[in-house]
Amino acid sequence: MTSHEFYMDLALKNAQAMKGQTDPNPLVGAVIVNDNRIVGVGAHMKAGEPHAEIHALRMAGNKARGATIYVTLEPCSHHGRTGPCAEALVAAGVRKVVIATLDPNPIVAGNGVKILQEAGIEVEIGVRAEESRKMNEVFNKYIVEKQPFVTLKAATTLDGKIATYTAHSKWITSELAREDVHQLRNENQAILVGINTVLKDNPQLTTRIPNGRNPIRIILDSKLSIPLDAHVVTDEQAETWIFTSNEFDREKEKVLNSRGIKIFSTTSQTTVNTQEVITILGENQISSLLIEAGGTVNASFFENQLIDKVVVYFAPKLIGGANAPTFLEGTGLEQMSEAIELADGSFTPIGKDFKFVGYPIYKNG
Amino acid sequence: MTSHEFYMDLALKNAQAMKGQTDPNPLVGAVIVNDNRIVGVGAHMKAGEPHAEIHALRMAGNKARGATIYVTLEPCSHHGRTGPCAEALVAAGVRKVVIATLDPNPIVAGNGVKILQEAGIEVEIGVRAEESRKMNEVFNKYIVEKQPFVTLKAATTLDGKIATYTAHSKWITSELAREDVHQLRNENQAILVGINTVLKDNPQLTTRIPNGRNPIRIILDSKLSIPLDAHVVTDEQAETWIFTSNEFDREKEKVLNSRGIKIFSTTSQTTVNTQEVITILGENQISSLLIEAGGTVNASFFENQLIDKVVVYFAPKLIGGANAPTFLEGTGLEQMSEAIELADGSFTPIGKDFKFVGYPIYKNG
Repeated sequence: MTSHEFYMDLALKNAQAMKGQTDPNPLVGAVIVNDNRIVGVGAHMKAGEPHAEIHALRMAGNKARGATIYVTLEPCSHHGRTGPCAEALVAAGVRKVVIATLDPNPIVAGNGVKILQEAGIEVEIGVRAEESRKMNEVFNKYIVEKQPFVTLKAATTLDGKIATYTAHSKWITSELAREDVHQLRNENQAILVGINTVLKDNPQLTTRIPNGRNPIRIILDSKLSIPLDAHVVTDEQAETWIFTSNEFDREKEKVLNSRGIKIFSTTSQTTVNTQEVITILGENQISSLLIEAGGTVNASFFENQLIDKVVVYFAPKLIGGANAPTFLEGTGLEQMSEAIELADGSFTPIGKDFKFVGYPIYKNG
Repeated sequence: MTSHEFYMDLALKNAQAMKGQTDPNPLVGAVIVNDNRIVGVGAHMKAGEPHAEIHALRMAGNKARGATIYVTLEPCSHHGRTGPCAEALVAAGVRKVVIATLDPNPIVAGNGVKILQEAGIEVEIGVRAEESRKMNEVFNKYIVEKQPFVTLKAATTLDGKIATYTAHSKWITSELAREDVHQLRNENQAILVGINTVLKDNPQLTTRIPNGRNPIRIILDSKLSIPLDAHVVTDEQAETWIFTSNEFDREKEKVLNSRGIKIFSTTSQTTVNTQEVITILGENQISSLLIEAGGTVNASFFENQLIDKVVVYFAPKLIGGANAPTFLEGTGLEQMSEAIELADGSFTPIGKDFKFVGYPIYKNG
């Protein structure tokens, strides 16, 4: 590890510590080094408050002059709720700026670097780039595409089943893995299931960990057949939004509206158009979506290439069953050569179970 | 790591190096230490040749007197093709014997230790026991039960499919994982598939690695419908044994017999009785069986609790498909609480893929 990586790692650690409290802004950390000594550290902590570089500059005071600053994201160039950080770095007289990744935000995207270079500051880009990009995977997509970053979550036996042939699924994974799912819920702005999950399990879809934030509950329900006494309709633990086809019970819509439930219709006739669901969520400032649905709903997002990340908990158990469901159904692909590969795949033990994380690479994406 | 573990690890390394060349004997290694110096090492190398302890004693010569010997398996007590090692250790004057595991072989099973203790030699048991047991998992079962140790192998996408909905399966995993499968074939005395695999893929079921040994090919074919031009019938690369139900074409049996194919009938009327298959293989001195079949054949072994070890290669790919097959079909278990847990589960990266290994724990087993 070079000293560049050592300092950038500290900046990343500070940035990551703020996970969940910077929305809609990205996580950013900064470290200022002068004469081989750390003279300032900072992180962005809350939207509307100073950026990481500003905190670090304040801590460093006049020791920032001639120093090197390590920052996990390109310093901003725009006058937002705080002034442009690139200009602040120039004013403070820093000698060198080491950046993990450029800011994908179209209003920055290289402009921060330009300001620095035009002021004669040396700029180095790409130290711990991968770590920085992953840390802000949600922000990086949403700021560019204005559509939510979509995570598909599933829990399966080792033989690929999400329930027995009698639809029994409690529980596949152990308590530790299920706790980890609540952490995922806490990190996502919205959570999505199909109407069949509501009818079968009547779930609450809340985040049951200390200080957990409940995501908005999204239900795909083409014909608006949700029972009026479902938890997601009655419990007021979080907002519930229902997506339908273009033919559904308008009277029931009124009843649900009167209970604070929002209804969004999509243009497909018999099913819910999942591409439109994602677009509408983006228009409603939802930057992250967790799908915890069954194999059919999952497949409708998969077929439209809408899944950005896959998280699967594998329980080391066998149940068998030709009719037991898997987490990805639908028609499926015809040839193995069409299979969608998952990049950066990894298995991590979690209690008795194993957590897989990977990122689909769509061939025509 | 204590010095006990240090020396036992060296004994294990020597034992493991002989993998594949000691059949039907177990792998055994030995290290002799006198006055904190290693004075002898040995391993069992071939059935009929000296046991590990004898090789190590010969190397140590008179330095064995007063020494400690580390041996991965209890020294034998019986007059087989070589004399009893326990007596040789007494005769050599060793002071202490450290043993990883007792020999499960009913004709030894503690008798070796008894000989040593009665001669006043100090005996310690259990150092690196788990490693020693795993190294000889095939021997440990066969010597006691006279039935083969059964390994189920499957290759699946991350969403649990062993083929697309059109039955296309070439290839799920990458070349490195497929090479590893040939290593598994090399380590097993027999390999088993169902007739559907023969009809669909016409496989050779041979070991395609340098110096690979071809396992005996076992085909489950209830009605003896195998084509006479199938590779396993014509290619003479290895023996082929076919298991049937009790109703099949006796004329075809004669034709197949004339080509060197053995036919074994089981007592079930329409299917092949998998419990009888295992018993018959044991009676024919098959100590290890690799099952590379489809989900239905796999399930028939699973339901009879005949699988000892599960090896699954996971490709980080998605294909979907409600009708795409999984590696364990049949009826399946009804409740999650009945699921068969896999002990000592682990995922290891192998090229782009991941190899899972685990051991089923049967509740009524």
